[in-house]
Amino acid sequence: MIPTEARSRTLGEIVDALGGELVGPRDLRIRQVATLDAAAADEVSFFASHHYRPQLDRTNAGAVVLGEGDRDATQRPRIVADAPYLYFARLSTLLNPPAAVMPGIHPSAVVHPQAQVAPDAQIDACAVVGAGAVIGAAAVIGPGCVVEAGASVGARARLGPNVVVRTDCAIGARCILHPGVVIGGDGFGMAESEGRWEKVPQIGRAILGDDVEVGANTTIDRGALGDTVIEEGVKLDNLIQIAHNVVIGAHTAVAACAGFAGSCRIGKYCRIGGAAMIHGHIEICDRTIVAAGTMVRKSITTPGIYDGFFPALPHRDWMKNLAHFNRLHEHADTIRKLEARIDALERGKH
Amino acid sequence: MIPTEARSRTLGEIVDALGGELVGPRDLRIRQVATLDAAAADEVSFFASHHYRPQLDRTNAGAVVLGEGDRDATQRPRIVADAPYLYFARLSTLLNPPAAVMPGIHPSAVVHPQAQVAPDAQIDACAVVGAGAVIGAAAVIGPGCVVEAGASVGARARLGPNVVVRTDCAIGARCILHPGVVIGGDGFGMAESEGRWEKVPQIGRAILGDDVEVGANTTIDRGALGDTVIEEGVKLDNLIQIAHNVVIGAHTAVAACAGFAGSCRIGKYCRIGGAAMIHGHIEICDRTIVAAGTMVRKSITTPGIYDGFFPALPHRDWMKNLAHFNRLHEHADTIRKLEARIDALERGKH
Amino acid sequence: MIPTEARSRTLGEIVDALGGELVGPRDLRIRQVATLDAAAADEVSFFASHHYRPQLDRTNAGAVVLGEGDRDATQRPRIVADAPYLYFARLSTLLNPPAAVMPGIHPSAVVHPQAQVAPDAQIDACAVVGAGAVIGAAAVIGPGCVVEAGASVGARARLGPNVVVRTDCAIGARCILHPGVVIGGDGFGMAESEGRWEKVPQIGRAILGDDVEVGANTTIDRGALGDTVIEEGVKLDNLIQIAHNVVIGAHTAVAACAGFAGSCRIGKYCRIGGAAMIHGHIEICDRTIVAAGTMVRKSITTPGIYDGFFPALPHRDWMKNLAHFNRLHEHADTIRKLEARIDALERGKH
Repeated sequence: MIPTEARSRTLGEIVDALGGELVGPRDLRIRQVATLDAAAADEVSFFASHHYRPQLDRTNAGAVVLGEGDRDATQRPRIVADAPYLYFARLSTLLNPPAAVMPGIHPSAVVHPQAQVAPDAQIDACAVVGAGAVIGAAAVIGPGCVVEAGASVGARARLGPNVVVRTDCAIGARCILHPGVVIGGDGFGMAESEGRWEKVPQIGRAILGDDVEVGANTTIDRGALGDTVIEEGVKLDNLIQIAHNVVIGAHTAVAACAGFAGSCRIGKYCRIGGAAMIHGHIEICDRTIVAAGTMVRKSITTPGIYDGFFPALPHRDWMKNLAHFNRLHEHADTIRKLEARIDALERGKH
Repeated sequence: MIPTEARSRTLGEIVDALGGELVGPRDLRIRQVATLDAAAADEVSFFASHHYRPQLDRTNAGAVVLGEGDRDATQRPRIVADAPYLYFARLSTLLNPPAAVMPGIHPSAVVHPQAQVAPDAQIDACAVVGAGAVIGAAAVIGPGCVVEAGASVGARARLGPNVVVRTDCAIGARCILHPGVVIGGDGFGMAESEGRWEKVPQIGRAILGDDVEVGANTTIDRGALGDTVIEEGVKLDNLIQIAHNVVIGAHTAVAACAGFAGSCRIGKYCRIGGAAMIHGHIEICDRTIVAAGTMVRKSITTPGIYDGFFPALPHRDWMKNLAHFNRLHEHADTIRKLEARIDALERGKH
Repeated sequence: MIPTEARSRTLGEIVDALGGELVGPRDLRIRQVATLDAAAADEVSFFASHHYRPQLDRTNAGAVVLGEGDRDATQRPRIVADAPYLYFARLSTLLNPPAAVMPGIHPSAVVHPQAQVAPDAQIDACAVVGAGAVIGAAAVIGPGCVVEAGASVGARARLGPNVVVRTDCAIGARCILHPGVVIGGDGFGMAESEGRWEKVPQIGRAILGDDVEVGANTTIDRGALGDTVIEEGVKLDNLIQIAHNVVIGAHTAVAACAGFAGSCRIGKYCRIGGAAMIHGHIEICDRTIVAAGTMVRKSITTPGIYDGFFPALPHRDWMKNLAHFNRLHEHADTIRKLEARIDALERGKH
């Protein structure tokens, strides 16, 4: 661990490094970032939503990052920035850099003699690297990882503990794979033979572009014939399932527990909510937002927000609505009959 | 393995150890617990619901645990207890104690010289323990586990195979973590920069109180700034996702496949059904029950049962209801028009 | 790796091995299978749905597998087969056989002296096999796997990296377990004691029949008292949760992210869609199809298709329908009042 003091910065050093306008003393030393409520006198916080106005008023933060329009929202030392949350993210990265790479192969790791491991890569304890696998410059293969034969891991990529990358799959530069991720398991492909299933070999790969991040225990299957492709900059949360031959467009973000069935194609710059489920063989266009808990069954060709879940109700209310829902066709019948009777009454009037 | 005979008890020994009133012979030897249908003459079963009356009538169990009100529901040997299922649980634990801890570090395990491992802790094959990690008294670190630098595991906690506890996270005493659990993966935090995502360092921890149980492949992310907290006695099933900065109150139980988005706060003594999804930044009060498959979008401030899922229907019925649902606004329009026409007719009568 | 050339076959060799009628040259050499769009002159594709007619028209495939009715749908070399997709699956298996088993125990694996490992089984790096475990003929235990004491793995079964099989569980012959699968974790069983939970020992096993395939990071819990049973030929996709004492009938297929609560019994030859959730203690009869995203709360006794999800709508439309849904009881009241008023009007006419 780098001693905390070594990472601290003065406010002056911060704006020199990251830009922004400092309103306050250049020599105030900042040790860490924190929420408005938790921040101490040597910590910086941020103010990016007026919901947090009460927290801003009572904060003890040494300084606050905020937008031009909020320049006078506090009298504390502050950094005025165009995008305060983005600025805060960069400031946190400055103060909390990723752990330094420790080049070398741990004696307990098992690296095949025909694997190509960059001299400055870090292979941790009990990791296993197969024949013909390629581990890029300054990449980190965490303890217990398995990178199978012919797979590749790009420069400065980081695999957390117990990640699996199966045969011939490719991980781009600077990717981050969290613990338990499985890349390149077989897709779910079977042919039926009199009610029984015969396996269809899954001979495609799973390919991750540069700067992809994949959350813990997420699974990305290899393609059946062609490849499964996760384009550059995609961010995937935990426990997501991506089936064979899915394509996720660049810079799309997907929240936890979502699922993508085989061969669906997701556009670029999309946002897919948690537990959303996307059916197979459909396309979702660029810049689409799918709400949490929503099932998408047909292709979406117009960008926008798509929704499809029922929020919880108290049990009694829900059961009442549910009962009505299950009688909707009776309601519709009743309405039609009422119309007919009114027609008759109205005719009788004339 | 302890030979089964060594764990057997007579009915007399059982009530001496666990209380309850024995109706039957003290010297009947009991080897194991079983369901009413499967129990043999040297096994004990339990009767806690009248749904199982037929099974009680035909059981061959050597003895049955039942409540005071059911004292005469069978003439077999029986133990009368206030809470028969709880009694049965304790009896099963008496007959089936957890495997004995085998103190020591397996030669294939990789323990950093600066880790603190209690002398009576068990570190299994191919486990990896990082610098500054603390492993408590009689704790078990299963094969293939990774406990990273600065993390701690409490006394008598048990980690199954291939569990990951990331840097600086803390596991309380007597916790049980099943295989593949990931504690302290990064939360899903990014800031947007012209459509691209920049990572927000996740510098909080994940903290589990005492007596927490976590099911296989469940993921609990570390906090973004503050900590993610699972309070004492919480029980989590398999494949659950807990995002950064969530708080789960003490003694809450969560069934499999549920998801908790960032910064939600769940009260104590709650029960969350399987595949329930809780949105971020909301609060659920103590003693709330959320049904399976239910999405909670807003805070819940009144204890009770909350519900929100549609049970399956035969395809044709469902499609009919779904079609009506998608025309609900037309129905509502039609009803309004009918009202107007009846108004007119009624006015015409007077 | 077997050189690709070694696996190639002529069309004549293919029909000699797999049957079917060849329309075209026997000596055309085929190297691989591919989609209609991607296939080259030394690759075979298939045509099994008229949706792909345009792709058939423009394909460059060396040959196409198709059904009797489509015999003349192309003039390219072709194989006429009764079930073209099944034929294609078998052809792909012929060209892409599973990796050869490499008998032996890797020096870094930790195999208990009392384990029984078949001489031609393959135990990979850093795998751990416990006392009394039985590994069958030509079985493959992947790197980082843990097969605990008393567990058994059948002949020619293949466990991918980091799979866990807990104590006393049994895996049938020819099973395929993908990375991160957990077999035999504890079921979620607790007894309540004044709001706190006491663990109920889970003393049953998880038993997988022959030819079961289990997708990455899927979890199958051991039984509480009796066993959890996955019958022969069942195919499970990724990230599925199977709770204690579930029974899945032979040859049933389950798509990703589905969940099965405790003690439910699923019939044979069923198909369960992705993210479907099956409640506990119910039965689903043979040959039932449950659509994706559907919750089954009650037993199903008639085979057929069951459905229960709402497809996504544009946000505004969804919110409008949702508002109406939450007022369904008002609508019903209004309809009843309208009926009464029309009754009165009609009585007034007579």
